[in-house]
Amino acid sequence: MNSKKEILIKFGERVREIRKEKGLSQEELSFKADLHRTYIGMIERAEKNITLVNIEKIANALEVNIEELFL
Amino acid sequence: MNSKKEILIKFGERVREIRKEKGLSQEELSFKADLHRTYIGMIERAEKNITLVNIEKIANALEVNIEELFL
Repeated sequence: MNSKKEILIKFGERVREIRKEKGLSQEELSFKADLHRTYIGMIERAEKNITLVNIEKIANALEVNIEELFL
Repeated sequence: MNSKKEILIKFGERVREIRKEKGLSQEELSFKADLHRTYIGMIERAEKNITLVNIEKIANALEVNIEELFL
């Protein structure tokens, strides 16, 4: 998964946008989501093809519904 | 990923629901999505933790927006 796919770029940008709206650092989000801080960075930079289970963890940590990550 | 997580169950049921609404067989969906037929079955039965790239393939094949898979 090294090619940066459009959908991963869009998702990563949306996570970063909502994270900043909520006033969270990557570290704070990673703690709330129980994911590694470097992993959050990779998601925001579209460097990982995230799984649904981790998408849900991020949505819960950001306190949004999953569909809001795709709007 | 052998434990069937709630989110995967919900997602799989939603895919099956929309697939049937569209009158597609698993085989037809798999062909349109460029995924293996057995993989579609595993997703609908919540046996796989699907990645975002494949979520998008299924959404495209079902001709729905990604967020509709999470409503």
